[in-house]
Amino acid sequence: MSDKLPETIQELETPCMLVDIDRVKRNCQQMIDRCKEMGMELRPHMKTHKTIEGGVLMTNGTKRKIVVSTIDEAVFYADNGFEDILWGSPIVKERISGRLINLANKLEEFHVMVDSLQGLNGLLATPLNEGKQWSVFLEVDCGNGRTGCLWDSEEAIQIGKTADAAPNVKFQGLYTHCGNTYTPDTEAKVKVQQDTTERLVALKKRLAENGVECRVVGCGSTPSSSKPIEGMKTLTEMHPGNYIFYDYMQVLLNSCTFDDVACKVATTVVSHKPETNTIVVDCGWTAFGLDAPNEKFPQAVLGKAPVEGHPELILGRMTQELGKLTTASGKIDCSQYPLGSRLYFYPWHSCCTASLHKVYYVHSGDKIVGTWKPTNGW
Amino acid sequence: MSDKLPETIQELETPCMLVDIDRVKRNCQQMIDRCKEMGMELRPHMKTHKTIEGGVLMTNGTKRKIVVSTIDEAVFYADNGFEDILWGSPIVKERISGRLINLANKLEEFHVMVDSLQGLNGLLATPLNEGKQWSVFLEVDCGNGRTGCLWDSEEAIQIGKTADAAPNVKFQGLYTHCGNTYTPDTEAKVKVQQDTTERLVALKKRLAENGVECRVVGCGSTPSSSKPIEGMKTLTEMHPGNYIFYDYMQVLLNSCTFDDVACKVATTVVSHKPETNTIVVDCGWTAFGLDAPNEKFPQAVLGKAPVEGHPELILGRMTQELGKLTTASGKIDCSQYPLGSRLYFYPWHSCCTASLHKVYYVHSGDKIVGTWKPTNGW
Repeated sequence: MSDKLPETIQELETPCMLVDIDRVKRNCQQMIDRCKEMGMELRPHMKTHKTIEGGVLMTNGTKRKIVVSTIDEAVFYADNGFEDILWGSPIVKERISGRLINLANKLEEFHVMVDSLQGLNGLLATPLNEGKQWSVFLEVDCGNGRTGCLWDSEEAIQIGKTADAAPNVKFQGLYTHCGNTYTPDTEAKVKVQQDTTERLVALKKRLAENGVECRVVGCGSTPSSSKPIEGMKTLTEMHPGNYIFYDYMQVLLNSCTFDDVACKVATTVVSHKPETNTIVVDCGWTAFGLDAPNEKFPQAVLGKAPVEGHPELILGRMTQELGKLTTASGKIDCSQYPLGSRLYFYPWHSCCTASLHKVYYVHSGDKIVGTWKPTNGW
Repeated sequence: MSDKLPETIQELETPCMLVDIDRVKRNCQQMIDRCKEMGMELRPHMKTHKTIEGGVLMTNGTKRKIVVSTIDEAVFYADNGFEDILWGSPIVKERISGRLINLANKLEEFHVMVDSLQGLNGLLATPLNEGKQWSVFLEVDCGNGRTGCLWDSEEAIQIGKTADAAPNVKFQGLYTHCGNTYTPDTEAKVKVQQDTTERLVALKKRLAENGVECRVVGCGSTPSSSKPIEGMKTLTEMHPGNYIFYDYMQVLLNSCTFDDVACKVATTVVSHKPETNTIVVDCGWTAFGLDAPNEKFPQAVLGKAPVEGHPELILGRMTQELGKLTTASGKIDCSQYPLGSRLYFYPWHSCCTASLHKVYYVHSGDKIVGTWKPTNGW
């Protein structure tokens, strides 16, 4: 892309990532309002966009209380004036780097997460500056089955007790990612929300019986936080992330409507191939990513990416810099998609698509209003 | 990652991308030697690694005669002293940007590719500086079915004649990407190589009958160029790219052996989940990518990524920053993979994995000998 920013999105070189600022602001405000209504704190996750501007909007301008997915993000946000940062990935001794120790020493509030006694012991063995403690969340697995200590395990109690008793540790409470709410079956999702809430409360109670207080009990995922259940009010904090942009997957998960999806990829038709019933665009997996609907989403009839204004088009195979489109039925009429014309893809998974771009072109209507530059790496 | 470079790969923070310089040099030298033996020119593709250092090795130190996949790459290599650069993606009028015109005016030799008369007409309508011409390759589809003008079409002749007659265009010849050689069936691959060669030669002959000379007739893909057939000697140029690193897919395509794969991703075990028969590592799709074996590869028994030294491990589902591993059979013995221990994944598709990293850690044995920093974007 040339250095000079054009006035409208139609003038941008393709492929490029577009962010609709009006939708982003609305998505952010709705989550802020929802948490307020629920009487819960919001600790938004930065992993989807990884930008300062997005972080400011998600924190309602406070630049406080965020989750990040990598140390790189933690450093980036800390360097840009953010505070109260939680690194949401399990600590093991070998991950306690100089960068991590610097963050813990430098920030007023920097939190880490543990899901094993062994990980916690790594922190116990790592002194910080005088007056500083490791601020620790226990990551709980309430049935999602990725990381986290099982909610009903003895190890969860041991971690809480050990952390609470350690002089260089401050035990904050519980954190869970209910990734198992990623189901288009609303009934199943509500069941996960109920189970997650009950399991967190049960663990909090068991810890209290062992003399360990949980100041914070947090759960979250965009499907869960976008349509919270009443019972979640018994928790203190939500930490969704994807909702800043949403995506086609979240539409199918009933987290949002199509009009809430706040990012898309602009691409140009570069080749007509009537003999294979395809047109080819300059957007491959480097610009769109390879995340795609699995068998959980039989209703993903449009393939992995709805094409704006063209419900008849299906995005098929992508190679590094090219994508093939075909029609749902019948012969493609190439004249409907002239060489050089623009198409816009809505991401299947905006976290994946956004992670591939080093600049987002921010627009209001067709007018470009600025650029956001995400951090990346680890 | 901290700024200071450690001495050995074991000391690097994870996840990170490792490049084995000895294997890279061997892979590059073998392709140079092979082309020499075949009496063909080598025009290596930069898209897999996108680094200066890799480009120097692939061009045998000449920094001349390369293919790139994006304008960003073309600018990057031109700014770093490379010459004779072909942008290998079809031109349409709307892609003739200021950056493209600058490259055509600035470089001694900069080539573009067309696969339509309409695209060619865009060039005809775009004057360059005095004494400069658009240097044009006709992209030919010899059966691969992605982009390119069909080898037996009338449009191919029209493009050749029009380009050859235009005062601001220099017609170079033919370029084809035989992506249909990506098959583990050797017999099928050889048939594609034969067909591709014959079809290029037939088109060259038809063009000659119309008074149009092809100085260059190029074909290539890593499977084809790694195991060329005798008949390819009738062509003038090969342009593979992936072979600098190779990957697990190329092993299954019989392009190379496992000992030729020159890159891997280092990761750390961060969680034990015996209850779900998994261990979890700090490498998700941001570090590894989501490209994976399709039904063409039933022999991909190890999943998408062989784990160095652990043939029993299968890399399963990845999320943004985490990957789950399980065992091919039976209960996983977590004690074999202690928390904090290292694992190394060989990429399924190195182009995809490498595109996700902003630095490669280059090593000889376990010793780190430097870093390479790829360009990215468009």
